[in-house]
Amino acid sequence: MIIVMKGSTPKEQVHDVIRTIEELGYQPHVIWGTQRTVIGAVGDERGKARLQSLEVMPGVESVVPILQPFKLAGREFKSTASTVKVGDAEFGSDRIPIIAGPCSVESEEMVMQLALLAKEAGASILRGGAFKPRTSPYAFQGMGKEGLRLLAQAREATGLAIVTEVLKPEDVDMIAETADMLQIGARNMQNFALLKRVGEVGKPVLLKRGMSATIQEFLMAAEYILSEGNYNVVLCERGIRTFETATRFTLDLNAIPVLKKLTHLPVIVDPSHGTGHWEYVAPMAKAGIACGADGLMIEVHMRPEIAVSDGIQSLRPDVFRQLMRELAPFAQAAGRRL
Amino acid sequence: MIIVMKGSTPKEQVHDVIRTIEELGYQPHVIWGTQRTVIGAVGDERGKARLQSLEVMPGVESVVPILQPFKLAGREFKSTASTVKVGDAEFGSDRIPIIAGPCSVESEEMVMQLALLAKEAGASILRGGAFKPRTSPYAFQGMGKEGLRLLAQAREATGLAIVTEVLKPEDVDMIAETADMLQIGARNMQNFALLKRVGEVGKPVLLKRGMSATIQEFLMAAEYILSEGNYNVVLCERGIRTFETATRFTLDLNAIPVLKKLTHLPVIVDPSHGTGHWEYVAPMAKAGIACGADGLMIEVHMRPEIAVSDGIQSLRPDVFRQLMRELAPFAQAAGRRL
Amino acid sequence: MIIVMKGSTPKEQVHDVIRTIEELGYQPHVIWGTQRTVIGAVGDERGKARLQSLEVMPGVESVVPILQPFKLAGREFKSTASTVKVGDAEFGSDRIPIIAGPCSVESEEMVMQLALLAKEAGASILRGGAFKPRTSPYAFQGMGKEGLRLLAQAREATGLAIVTEVLKPEDVDMIAETADMLQIGARNMQNFALLKRVGEVGKPVLLKRGMSATIQEFLMAAEYILSEGNYNVVLCERGIRTFETATRFTLDLNAIPVLKKLTHLPVIVDPSHGTGHWEYVAPMAKAGIACGADGLMIEVHMRPEIAVSDGIQSLRPDVFRQLMRELAPFAQAAGRRL
Amino acid sequence: MIIVMKGSTPKEQVHDVIRTIEELGYQPHVIWGTQRTVIGAVGDERGKARLQSLEVMPGVESVVPILQPFKLAGREFKSTASTVKVGDAEFGSDRIPIIAGPCSVESEEMVMQLALLAKEAGASILRGGAFKPRTSPYAFQGMGKEGLRLLAQAREATGLAIVTEVLKPEDVDMIAETADMLQIGARNMQNFALLKRVGEVGKPVLLKRGMSATIQEFLMAAEYILSEGNYNVVLCERGIRTFETATRFTLDLNAIPVLKKLTHLPVIVDPSHGTGHWEYVAPMAKAGIACGADGLMIEVHMRPEIAVSDGIQSLRPDVFRQLMRELAPFAQAAGRRL
Repeated sequence: MIIVMKGSTPKEQVHDVIRTIEELGYQPHVIWGTQRTVIGAVGDERGKARLQSLEVMPGVESVVPILQPFKLAGREFKSTASTVKVGDAEFGSDRIPIIAGPCSVESEEMVMQLALLAKEAGASILRGGAFKPRTSPYAFQGMGKEGLRLLAQAREATGLAIVTEVLKPEDVDMIAETADMLQIGARNMQNFALLKRVGEVGKPVLLKRGMSATIQEFLMAAEYILSEGNYNVVLCERGIRTFETATRFTLDLNAIPVLKKLTHLPVIVDPSHGTGHWEYVAPMAKAGIACGADGLMIEVHMRPEIAVSDGIQSLRPDVFRQLMRELAPFAQAAGRRL
Repeated sequence: MIIVMKGSTPKEQVHDVIRTIEELGYQPHVIWGTQRTVIGAVGDERGKARLQSLEVMPGVESVVPILQPFKLAGREFKSTASTVKVGDAEFGSDRIPIIAGPCSVESEEMVMQLALLAKEAGASILRGGAFKPRTSPYAFQGMGKEGLRLLAQAREATGLAIVTEVLKPEDVDMIAETADMLQIGARNMQNFALLKRVGEVGKPVLLKRGMSATIQEFLMAAEYILSEGNYNVVLCERGIRTFETATRFTLDLNAIPVLKKLTHLPVIVDPSHGTGHWEYVAPMAKAGIACGADGLMIEVHMRPEIAVSDGIQSLRPDVFRQLMRELAPFAQAAGRRL
Repeated sequence: MIIVMKGSTPKEQVHDVIRTIEELGYQPHVIWGTQRTVIGAVGDERGKARLQSLEVMPGVESVVPILQPFKLAGREFKSTASTVKVGDAEFGSDRIPIIAGPCSVESEEMVMQLALLAKEAGASILRGGAFKPRTSPYAFQGMGKEGLRLLAQAREATGLAIVTEVLKPEDVDMIAETADMLQIGARNMQNFALLKRVGEVGKPVLLKRGMSATIQEFLMAAEYILSEGNYNVVLCERGIRTFETATRFTLDLNAIPVLKKLTHLPVIVDPSHGTGHWEYVAPMAKAGIACGADGLMIEVHMRPEIAVSDGIQSLRPDVFRQLMRELAPFAQAAGRRL
Repeated sequence: MIIVMKGSTPKEQVHDVIRTIEELGYQPHVIWGTQRTVIGAVGDERGKARLQSLEVMPGVESVVPILQPFKLAGREFKSTASTVKVGDAEFGSDRIPIIAGPCSVESEEMVMQLALLAKEAGASILRGGAFKPRTSPYAFQGMGKEGLRLLAQAREATGLAIVTEVLKPEDVDMIAETADMLQIGARNMQNFALLKRVGEVGKPVLLKRGMSATIQEFLMAAEYILSEGNYNVVLCERGIRTFETATRFTLDLNAIPVLKKLTHLPVIVDPSHGTGHWEYVAPMAKAGIACGADGLMIEVHMRPEIAVSDGIQSLRPDVFRQLMRELAPFAQAAGRRL
């Protein structure tokens, strides 16, 4: 932390700040400047956020953090890229896993059809919501445990691994028994109780970025899981909230190279939620791979127009198959393969 | 829902859309126009979001909702303003309750001091976090049950009602035994499992707006609680996330008159989180009352510079006392009183 | 500027940075830390933005500015509040001037009617667009010079001063001959050629905040005018662009106390554009005064439903008159008067 | 336009709205519904924005536009993709032109070096700012006419076409004499006087998206140029303003497929401004091509650390050369070539 003092601060105020830094357990290093006096506070990084409160002291102009607040998720902690294995897929490797499937599990027939489609087209993980977070209490809330059973059945039939969302801490164990990967949805990215629970369980976690989370907050959410001892975390950019209304969210692909620089964790892209419209999914899937994503998550449906949720952003089978064919040369251009 | 067809859509495509509307259980009303054909879909409003998926059908240009998706929270359901009683305070009445207290409960002494201060200055509810949602896993996570006990003790000493945050569904019963009002924090505004639980319990709920939640989503979150039978919901505007970095959040005071128009529920303002800086709390507290807020929530601390959380936005005792004195004429100008 | 080096930077890279700081004309001050080495660069503040480019050098983690980039607009340059006189009105004084009038000048009759209404209700400045910036080339572009003539005529009849918008540098002289105050619209806040011209002319300027301008950029735009020698600048908060769609813009009232802290220039609020809907204008006008605004700008129309522009946010005469009556006690609560 | 009436509106209010629609020159079509009455207004699309004002009338709930407000820029006006020729380059063709060069023209030597580099690496257009829009009045404002002369000299030496920015209407003719393409910067996207002038002149225009412009507003800005008879417009996505601070702007690549759907005009990507950091330029350049961009604009500098502007986002020669080599397979994967 660097504490910047105001232009004409009396020395007594500087000393008050110094004393308070010491009181909080840090060592102050003062640089007496001509225009500004600046104080560095040195000590255990992990509690430093608290030093922000020094901004209320007389004479203090601003408090500027100079280090990133995450540890285990950062490249300074581990400089080489991590990989996360889920079934046959390995996120962070040369081969780019594709996760495909419906937004919600709707019936036995639909899950089986879509699992076969995903498998045949080259995906390696099946997605499907059994417990659904819905903006409206009147919308379909998911099939629950029966949905989980259908996913497991589809895994048995196809060999695909399965990923599904967990909504509350008390469901984590039950869902972890069936699923190969636990998804934390965007709306739960800062549900810290849930993050801690999936951290304890140890299963691979797919952590989606909150729609208004900064990249730093996203990594702090991952840090919650890592600090419980679970390093199998895959990050997922899925669009942020901006003023633009032509798309449901603004897919922040800048986040891919930024995350690649800051963290060793694998990063994937969800172009379905990130655009909210099926026609834009294919170009943004390609863009995701081009800028370095370690995987994709794509919603597919046999008849999107009657889907119980998110039909508008789901690909029909033929569109999905074509996308999978078209993705291959982009993966190759990126020095990887599907 | 209004389904707008593209300019030169063949009739067959229009009929496909009509058939699908019927398949989904709605009645289609077609208006054949010169530039555009438009189809209205009539039926049970509560499941209509699903009709958005029609946008994937050939010939469909856009699907436009014309009704608000909330019911119980809306003025069409209940046109007169609701009031919510918490201890001696009544949100939505002529008298404007002030909630004051520390961000986190830190010790017995501090809670008692601040409770006495709040009481003496004219506040009617004591706030204080016992279970804290923190961006960093390394930051102070709250005193837990011991914090609850200290709040109850402060209530006994002062007669103030107490409000405190709940973080997970399984804690709701335990916290509801002690607290007079349950707070759902901004990061949990779409933690639907938690919303349902506080809906079942029936205690008054303080629902904070998510930092990237639209006003419509905010009301849908309230709808979750109401639809479980709990009508004692107070909404709290606490700042949204924008590009501006001079303040921690952008306090969206526009939301106060908009909410007053759309919903019968009381609405309060949190200028502490909404600005993130103590110097801006007083002016924005006054502005909140001027534009029609039914209450305020203000963070106070004896020594903000050593607070374990949010010291930067906490008022010192003398600043808080002065604010309470200055608020009175604004309440009066608004035809109300503190 | 503070240049933060990466954790394990070799000394040679630090020395490269030091040499480049010197090459750019600044004096480096190195603090060799345990976790990070930090270099302060001291010298003429006004060109320091250039030092940001050091971030490209090997070993540099980030470059952090510690001083605000504006000079003349800042409280460090002039600590006491400035006032700006326009006709009988004085922005920044105890008396709060109200600017009222139509979005666009539409006809002789309408301008005269609205001027009389504004005068009678207590406003001191008449607004009215003669040259209009419109999002669509097919929308009404203003009456031009004839509009100016009608404004001047209304001034003669009522004694109100007049403010009108300038769109391009070459119109500044012509419009300055008639208008008492020149308005720079939000879309032109960073039209630097226009800022320089109104700076040269010397007439009072009403500078509206760009819809995506940070407060710092807003003050840098004012700095352009001030640095040409024109200190008669009034700042106007008129709403920023955010994800919220329930209002046309999000009125950022936080900006009022922030600006009051950073600058000596008067600051006013435009609740008409800041909400985009007439029903929200009155509450936000009151809130503006409550948080310290030095004036208001309000759109009024005899028949908003047939206005050529912005009818949706214009007040009918009776609504405007009532607002003016209701504002008085809020001004008084703020220690001022209308 | 569709005018949605409130739930329980008396018939008389519906008739008032009908009369006003007629007064404004449109034909009303009423659909009397059970929950809502809805009125369609039919007539000349180009002035329809005015109908928004009907929202102020008693009984009106909302006014919903159902058609896009642009004409000439839209796919309904011209369904096939347009191409724009600039020197040897053709935007919108199978071959993807790369624009490269410094942010600002700084000296004869630097322009010549960078032009030779750009040419040799495969770029076809040289960029370079002679007149610079700068946030600070104290920052370098460009070399002006001398800068133009140096660009022309570099064109002569290399055969590259040149694009440079115009800042004010009165400079357009002078700059158009030298430049092959006129750039309208992001801050001037809604400088309507400037748009009209470049529309009259007829030279190819590179129109950059405003940092808070919706895609619809972006196309309306293009419409200004087209409606003056100049169809040689190339759109450029260069990042929008969001809450994320890890990058200077959020590059909105979603906008590429959205624009491709809505307009026939070519669309390019500027990953330099869109990220604000040289390390992220290469991945986002690749992503731009992957999602369908018709060109790229990239800032290059011999020694970015001493650049007078935007050094932080400029590529060194070797990094640029490598990027050009790596882009080729992505262009091929997209069915195109550099």
